[in-house]
Amino acid sequence: MDRTRRGPTEERGVTVERIVAAARDSFAEQGWAGTSLRGVARAAGVDARLVSYYFADKTALLQACLQPPAGFAERVAAAASAPLARRGIALLEAMLANWNDPASAVVLRSVILTAAHEPLALRALQAVFRHALIGAVAGSLDDDTGGGSGDLDGGERTLRAGLVASQIVGLFMTRYVWRIPPLSELPDAQIVRLVGPTVQRYLEGPLDR
Amino acid sequence: MDRTRRGPTEERGVTVERIVAAARDSFAEQGWAGTSLRGVARAAGVDARLVSYYFADKTALLQACLQPPAGFAERVAAAASAPLARRGIALLEAMLANWNDPASAVVLRSVILTAAHEPLALRALQAVFRHALIGAVAGSLDDDTGGGSGDLDGGERTLRAGLVASQIVGLFMTRYVWRIPPLSELPDAQIVRLVGPTVQRYLEGPLDR
Repeated sequence: MDRTRRGPTEERGVTVERIVAAARDSFAEQGWAGTSLRGVARAAGVDARLVSYYFADKTALLQACLQPPAGFAERVAAAASAPLARRGIALLEAMLANWNDPASAVVLRSVILTAAHEPLALRALQAVFRHALIGAVAGSLDDDTGGGSGDLDGGERTLRAGLVASQIVGLFMTRYVWRIPPLSELPDAQIVRLVGPTVQRYLEGPLDR
Repeated sequence: MDRTRRGPTEERGVTVERIVAAARDSFAEQGWAGTSLRGVARAAGVDARLVSYYFADKTALLQACLQPPAGFAERVAAAASAPLARRGIALLEAMLANWNDPASAVVLRSVILTAAHEPLALRALQAVFRHALIGAVAGSLDDDTGGGSGDLDGGERTLRAGLVASQIVGLFMTRYVWRIPPLSELPDAQIVRLVGPTVQRYLEGPLDR
């Protein structure tokens, strides 16, 4: 399956995507140390030289694996522009939509698992967290938070975003990675009714007392 | 755990613990495929024959790694006997105590990460979940849940336990595994004030409407 480098763009894209998909599995499940360009080539069914052609080294390959999935940031940003009173719900719906998109779910799963033991993946995840959650969601809180807290400081914004992340990541682990019933089986709309109030409180409710 | 019949007990225990600790790291970070008895022996600094002597095969080694840490079940069970009105807080405090105990935290981290790709680890985690959370916490809800729901069915108990797990696992990931500030830096008491109401609602609050 040794594809030419002068082939049509679409074909190259398919090859790169196969390599990256194989690399994602390997980084998530065998870590940095257990992943080799040669092993990834084998799993992807391509010649090892082709992997080296597209990716200078293992770091470049990992970086390609850590790119947020298509649509991820857009969905989160759209949710962040919802009125505050239902922004937690909108954010949860956006994350459920991201996980229901198989191409997106596989990236998120890989980043979450790889970040547990690879500093590069952890930094990538923290960047996604910072931009998607703190930037888009908590960053807009200071405009319209009720209760006289119109001047949320950066610390509070980061704390609220972190709390939102703690619930969403845990839901992802239990519902999608571990598939613990009934969380793994309920329809999205019911998950939103069950967990939405938590996200909503973390976004705008009274927190520490 | 298959211990030798000779030599001082304490010394044997130390050796076995070193082997298991090395195996935990390896399973969590390199997965089942990336873990070998030989590699574990090297990481533990012991002769490979000693690993084979204590553990018949890789499955036996993984099972030893998945034993819940000492004190884990006891702390959760004690929290489960707290009055319902503060049981969510007590449960969260018990989990924070488990994570602050380094010996316990390393086991939980390993089980959580390994369960993402090893069916045996996933089953072990589901068993811990079932016994520690559904059995101890949600199972006692039917005795004293207010609001006329004295007859929680098993489905609702399991759902409530799953929701509790979703928040606690996510907190563990963000605070301990990824170390995302400020969640990673706040004192336990503040975490309890921030996240306790969520756990409390999942245990006894109105859920789905």
